[in-house]
Amino acid sequence: MNTIGTLFKITSFGESHGPLVGCVIDGCPAGFKPDIERMQKAVNLRKTGQNAHASQRLEEDQIQIVSGLFEGRCTGSPLCILIQNQDSRPQDYENLKEVFRPNHADYSYQQKYGFRDHRGGGRSSVRITVPLVAAGNLALQILESLASVQIHSYVSAIGGIQIPSRFHSNQIDWEELYQHPLRVPIHPLRNDMEERVNACLQQGDTLGGCIQVLVNGVPAGWGEPIFGKLQAALAHAMMSIPSVKAFEYGDGFESATQSGSFHNDSFITEEGHIRTASNRSGGIQGGISNGEEIHFRIGFKPISSIRSTQKTVNKEGIEVDLNITGRHDVCAVPRAIPIVEAYTAFTLLDACLQQQSKNHQKL
Amino acid sequence: MNTIGTLFKITSFGESHGPLVGCVIDGCPAGFKPDIERMQKAVNLRKTGQNAHASQRLEEDQIQIVSGLFEGRCTGSPLCILIQNQDSRPQDYENLKEVFRPNHADYSYQQKYGFRDHRGGGRSSVRITVPLVAAGNLALQILESLASVQIHSYVSAIGGIQIPSRFHSNQIDWEELYQHPLRVPIHPLRNDMEERVNACLQQGDTLGGCIQVLVNGVPAGWGEPIFGKLQAALAHAMMSIPSVKAFEYGDGFESATQSGSFHNDSFITEEGHIRTASNRSGGIQGGISNGEEIHFRIGFKPISSIRSTQKTVNKEGIEVDLNITGRHDVCAVPRAIPIVEAYTAFTLLDACLQQQSKNHQKL
Amino acid sequence: MNTIGTLFKITSFGESHGPLVGCVIDGCPAGFKPDIERMQKAVNLRKTGQNAHASQRLEEDQIQIVSGLFEGRCTGSPLCILIQNQDSRPQDYENLKEVFRPNHADYSYQQKYGFRDHRGGGRSSVRITVPLVAAGNLALQILESLASVQIHSYVSAIGGIQIPSRFHSNQIDWEELYQHPLRVPIHPLRNDMEERVNACLQQGDTLGGCIQVLVNGVPAGWGEPIFGKLQAALAHAMMSIPSVKAFEYGDGFESATQSGSFHNDSFITEEGHIRTASNRSGGIQGGISNGEEIHFRIGFKPISSIRSTQKTVNKEGIEVDLNITGRHDVCAVPRAIPIVEAYTAFTLLDACLQQQSKNHQKL
Amino acid sequence: MNTIGTLFKITSFGESHGPLVGCVIDGCPAGFKPDIERMQKAVNLRKTGQNAHASQRLEEDQIQIVSGLFEGRCTGSPLCILIQNQDSRPQDYENLKEVFRPNHADYSYQQKYGFRDHRGGGRSSVRITVPLVAAGNLALQILESLASVQIHSYVSAIGGIQIPSRFHSNQIDWEELYQHPLRVPIHPLRNDMEERVNACLQQGDTLGGCIQVLVNGVPAGWGEPIFGKLQAALAHAMMSIPSVKAFEYGDGFESATQSGSFHNDSFITEEGHIRTASNRSGGIQGGISNGEEIHFRIGFKPISSIRSTQKTVNKEGIEVDLNITGRHDVCAVPRAIPIVEAYTAFTLLDACLQQQSKNHQKL
Repeated sequence: MNTIGTLFKITSFGESHGPLVGCVIDGCPAGFKPDIERMQKAVNLRKTGQNAHASQRLEEDQIQIVSGLFEGRCTGSPLCILIQNQDSRPQDYENLKEVFRPNHADYSYQQKYGFRDHRGGGRSSVRITVPLVAAGNLALQILESLASVQIHSYVSAIGGIQIPSRFHSNQIDWEELYQHPLRVPIHPLRNDMEERVNACLQQGDTLGGCIQVLVNGVPAGWGEPIFGKLQAALAHAMMSIPSVKAFEYGDGFESATQSGSFHNDSFITEEGHIRTASNRSGGIQGGISNGEEIHFRIGFKPISSIRSTQKTVNKEGIEVDLNITGRHDVCAVPRAIPIVEAYTAFTLLDACLQQQSKNHQKL
Repeated sequence: MNTIGTLFKITSFGESHGPLVGCVIDGCPAGFKPDIERMQKAVNLRKTGQNAHASQRLEEDQIQIVSGLFEGRCTGSPLCILIQNQDSRPQDYENLKEVFRPNHADYSYQQKYGFRDHRGGGRSSVRITVPLVAAGNLALQILESLASVQIHSYVSAIGGIQIPSRFHSNQIDWEELYQHPLRVPIHPLRNDMEERVNACLQQGDTLGGCIQVLVNGVPAGWGEPIFGKLQAALAHAMMSIPSVKAFEYGDGFESATQSGSFHNDSFITEEGHIRTASNRSGGIQGGISNGEEIHFRIGFKPISSIRSTQKTVNKEGIEVDLNITGRHDVCAVPRAIPIVEAYTAFTLLDACLQQQSKNHQKL
Repeated sequence: MNTIGTLFKITSFGESHGPLVGCVIDGCPAGFKPDIERMQKAVNLRKTGQNAHASQRLEEDQIQIVSGLFEGRCTGSPLCILIQNQDSRPQDYENLKEVFRPNHADYSYQQKYGFRDHRGGGRSSVRITVPLVAAGNLALQILESLASVQIHSYVSAIGGIQIPSRFHSNQIDWEELYQHPLRVPIHPLRNDMEERVNACLQQGDTLGGCIQVLVNGVPAGWGEPIFGKLQAALAHAMMSIPSVKAFEYGDGFESATQSGSFHNDSFITEEGHIRTASNRSGGIQGGISNGEEIHFRIGFKPISSIRSTQKTVNKEGIEVDLNITGRHDVCAVPRAIPIVEAYTAFTLLDACLQQQSKNHQKL
Repeated sequence: MNTIGTLFKITSFGESHGPLVGCVIDGCPAGFKPDIERMQKAVNLRKTGQNAHASQRLEEDQIQIVSGLFEGRCTGSPLCILIQNQDSRPQDYENLKEVFRPNHADYSYQQKYGFRDHRGGGRSSVRITVPLVAAGNLALQILESLASVQIHSYVSAIGGIQIPSRFHSNQIDWEELYQHPLRVPIHPLRNDMEERVNACLQQGDTLGGCIQVLVNGVPAGWGEPIFGKLQAALAHAMMSIPSVKAFEYGDGFESATQSGSFHNDSFITEEGHIRTASNRSGGIQGGISNGEEIHFRIGFKPISSIRSTQKTVNKEGIEVDLNITGRHDVCAVPRAIPIVEAYTAFTLLDACLQQQSKNHQKL
């Protein structure tokens, strides 16, 4: 329900306009010393108010870890992370109490639960991901301590402008990338996208886009063969991020147009290691990592909260005109980068721990 | 690991060239009377040997239900389904013992488990889906008894030839569709695809493709808001099907190119019911069904077993030429139709039962 | 790991001498209006400092519910309960850093995790049950809204003085009982026990005891036949309470001395309902409730923290004399009453929801 | 529901008078070579028809492992074990179709499921434990490969005759014990029990009893601190065995009569290892093994199927006289020895694998 993972388990709680958002993390290795500053930095990357086209809600997003640590190290007991909501403005949503906003969860929550917390989407707000970004960064740190896993991602498309697939990620200066508001790798296209976003901001409209994820250093053997395939776990995690509509790994939908003789990745031996010559598989074969780069792409719909007047209905089914105020992004995709990396990290750590749990040794 | 579902739980077991494949189904409502003939019919739809471009392995695929039924009705105890392997030919794979077939799970299984059952992929074979098709059809029957859910799917693309997205599914004669080897809706394109498949058969090559799934009759309210979002559960299930590389629902990747004002589905009132004017959301909002048609599309890579000689390495990492014999499909997508529908059905039934479990009543 | 339940799920976190203890509760019915004052009252019943022979740690134990409620009602999202630690005195435990206290979890935690939070037992302290008592009381309130379940319990033995098994619970004034420090039903034996406890307090020693639990109003049909038998779920919950060493239901160990002709409960018809003439089964048959009173008994060992000098070893294995100061109960059994009732309540609610989830209805 | 375990998972299926009983075992280490003959021997120990006072149903109980093995070794995929029912006699139960047998699961199943398989108790029969005994023996073999765990048990009481608690298990010749029909350690009391059982056989009555379990070689550190305490997992497993009414570990109910100064186990150093001087804790402290012998005791009620006429009611609630024929034990406790050891083994293996999963190593 609100929990994900088998050996590394995260339970989410909190609402956008309640007192706080948080999560409980179970399965941190005893003795591990988390770098809390680094967790905070990841959280800051998805902060609101960073630029003109991002939501202007101002939150400090200060991480508090209230359990599971002793003298800076994980005790083996669950970590609870709390993040206070300081700039919530439930009053902004008063006029939405009786109305269903298009493409929001208002109507489906109402039908599911019989009533709903209308303040900023309540539980359906992307704000609930803040503590999960912290948890994901912790997962990444643990992953790094167990294997040499590196997770990177960039915005590969915004509003129809797309980075060509022949683009090579080794040209990316990641530090520079994460600092740029759009998180698009250096490229003339970045400017085009910026213009599109600014135009859209003027029009009170919003834009969708894509994120490309690249994971290096995952050894062969992670993932389960039937129902916990690595791609299934990743797809599940990615589709759990608000606004994500599509997931593909390796050559993805493109592979549906290919022949086997083109698609197949030949095995070769390189410096004594078995590798594949190409990587159309995306680093996963038969549900299990094969040691190559794991790469996948996800598609986001545009943010639902637009400024122009929309047609909708109220609870009684009567058609009304809707004007959304509140504070919203033009394009949420750049701010989704730390979320995507966090969800990738905790999914991979769970797969890692599951595989490690098979390393049986005589005690 | 080998189990999926929360309230409707399926546990898979068996290998392609062992004595049998099977599954255990937990959570069937007591008193429910399954139509076993219909389950068998669904299984037959994915049978091998149906035409020239399908694998020529001949299996009766006769369902045996060895527990959980009494006088034709579910007792509330788990149903175990067994399907014998009658035409396994492990000897066909003797020459593969030491070699890693490209894009198969050979190498990743070897790395995960330290050794592997090389006979026809063992556990990684699509044959393990046979009992799951039966289980999925049972799930569909239960779904139909609880709601008026209809699940349909068709092949929408093969090897780059694609049915245009403006195509309307209400033109489809489903009975006719399922009988056709390619399971492409009536259309001149079907012939083009047939020609492509036949050409490919001659060349000893294989082809990828896409399946479009349409689910009607799901009431608003199914799915969980954070980690069990309906799209996440569906994506997980679809990515658990061998060869699937991509999943999208609603407007999918297309929505990444759209603006919010274009993408948003306005709420309207139609004959006293709240509906959406368009359905770019694909029937799911905030992770929860909204009562509209749920539609999604999945992409399959081409079958990995091609007839032409491939480069690969053996266990020692020495490069060798590989010639795959065995019995394989040219394009597995048409035979995947019953698998996709089965996985959709058990995923939706689990969501249905979870939602029903919230219908609390004073005893 | 730190989570219990299937449809009503509780995740525990926090340590005795950290900033707070808490839990996350998933599965509360949307729309349910919890009586928070009543939850607080249950928590107060297990408060320290209530009398001379209870621990003198002074905690307000004020419940904060920081998520999952909107306008006083459950939204269907998880409730997070926090309880601050206000009177923690980690310094009391400084001298225990290097020493293993007998019968505490010090040594086993050290062996499991490689290091440990020595402050008041950290995670192994009974203090972590405070939010669980609140959660259990909430479960009881939900149970009452779904069925007419009543859970009562009393201290049936302390330090060898035992209430005879022929004692009838309908003689108990529950309000009076819960107010009395020992929570022993009115009886001359209560005074004997009080004397024993007081003598023990003088000697710096501690005492074990038993609790009898009585549950009325559970309808027939709760519990699962093989691995989720109702008695197995209850035993699991009771054995999760610190200091519990024994569990029996119905005639328990006594039934091992009986013959079948004596033990069997005849079915009879009483006022149109099928009942059993006796209730040696304890209200559960074949793992499933049969509608009769569910009764079980649990045995507690004496509190491990005694005041007299004990022999033990330090981390280096060197024998040392140990003098425990800190603030501890003479006999924890009376204060365990609200814990036992809470754990009973959330176990039964989970069984109730699982059984309700089988009430399928055409939508 | 019908599954137990986290990393070593067993799913049970089948009914007493259906075609077969079986289970699926997930989590066997890849490469492990099970001794199937030894599994069969464990199954044979609980066979019916072994002597005059055991049920006379004749079953070969031949284990078939139909998946998960390749060249004699576990592949990492689930093992499915099938055991055919060869001597089922559903007709023996025809007269029970409309009647509720006292203390059987007939009435509670009827209330839970709305109807029931009346043939020999269907799913509630102890026959469903046969494949679980095989699974448990496999778990024991895996345990032995990971640690030097030894599990032994003996019948410590039958019908009120009890082996004194001062009895030392190191006097037991286990080979001899398992061969004796009553599985009581050598002792004059064994003869008394035999007489009691024979007398009971004449009277058509049945008897309860107790089993003492002794587990050696479990290293310190197994078990989880809050909800997966080792004693809670063991209690859950034991209470899942048909007829078990009581569980205690260490000094159990006896410890409720003790003072802390008497009960506490002092830590000492013996040959360089930290041990406890006494073992009233039963080898578990704070929910986690401490390296000492784990010992616990379980109480069984008498078998419900007695031969003398009993009062009961039929489905309409009308009182009827009941005469049970069928084939039943006088005292099921001796035949429960392999079941108890099996359930102990798979519970401990799961705890072992969970603890091993915490042995993180840089890859």
